[in-house]
Amino acid sequence: MNDAQRVILGIDPGTMILGYGVILADRRKVHYVDMGVVDLRKEKDHFAKLNTIFTEVSRIISRYTPDDVAVEAPFYGKNPQVMLKLGRAQGAAIAAAIAANVPIFEYAPRKVKMAVTGQGAASKEQVALILSRTLATELRPEFLDASDALAIALCHFYQLVNPFADVENSTSWEKFVKSHPERMR
Amino acid sequence: MNDAQRVILGIDPGTMILGYGVILADRRKVHYVDMGVVDLRKEKDHFAKLNTIFTEVSRIISRYTPDDVAVEAPFYGKNPQVMLKLGRAQGAAIAAAIAANVPIFEYAPRKVKMAVTGQGAASKEQVALILSRTLATELRPEFLDASDALAIALCHFYQLVNPFADVENSTSWEKFVKSHPERMR
Repeated sequence: MNDAQRVILGIDPGTMILGYGVILADRRKVHYVDMGVVDLRKEKDHFAKLNTIFTEVSRIISRYTPDDVAVEAPFYGKNPQVMLKLGRAQGAAIAAAIAANVPIFEYAPRKVKMAVTGQGAASKEQVALILSRTLATELRPEFLDASDALAIALCHFYQLVNPFADVENSTSWEKFVKSHPERMR
Repeated sequence: MNDAQRVILGIDPGTMILGYGVILADRRKVHYVDMGVVDLRKEKDHFAKLNTIFTEVSRIISRYTPDDVAVEAPFYGKNPQVMLKLGRAQGAAIAAAIAANVPIFEYAPRKVKMAVTGQGAASKEQVALILSRTLATELRPEFLDASDALAIALCHFYQLVNPFADVENSTSWEKFVKSHPERMR
């Protein structure tokens, strides 16, 4: 891997399924690396789910050593208890990136769809279709849940190659990285 | 420390202040060890807060090597966005315990107050007063935010010495511990 290459890990941490997608950015080109899902429905309780999320995301990070991790930003759910559980799941996934000293970026779901398909309200199937063309890979149906994660990674790639693109509402870790250079690789 | 002794760390992870309290359970007696707060208001953004939560809780765990970690269970907030951010904060704190292989237990706020003061609707000041008597220590005003965390730890102690006490709504990690003995110390 040369200096112009950058591994991006996209994570979509839900309370039922955790999806992940890995891409390799090579200057302005992007290549598919891997994607997958972690099924959390078999876990017996909430803490077991959080344990699996933290452990599995840590393993994925060890395996692909990403330069950046991109996650989905808060969406506007209505049920406070559901949101708290979703927040805990996201917090456990984010903590795995923190523990590995990998910078984290987040993007709103609508912006991810906009960046990848040009449509903010694209369906999961539309996203998967565009993704398979852009990344020149076949998305297997069993990994449909991971396509959102792959889309988040791709959205971050577009943001990197064109920081002035219309990817609003993204919150970066840049300020933190600047003020804490010792914590960064 | 003998086999009958048990260090309990209580954590109250908010988005502004993280409070913690440490007690030592010696059979049916309990002793105050330490308490403190981590001010998150100075952090520049949400990820910097999550980083500080994970890092500081990891440090506190390294320092006191607790046998159990007790956290506050979801309460019934109304604003979904606030709940998601609170959930992320809790998730980062819980992940620090997961990373250190320490079992986690959670208790509803009302049950903590009930266990410590006998009143489910006790004020923060009432909780602090009873805590200072029970633990024979003076609670300094600047650590008032940590008194909730100390109360959570004490609630877990009461649960340990009397599992049939009226500490309802507690979810334990027991099933997980039983099914994953290799992950436990």
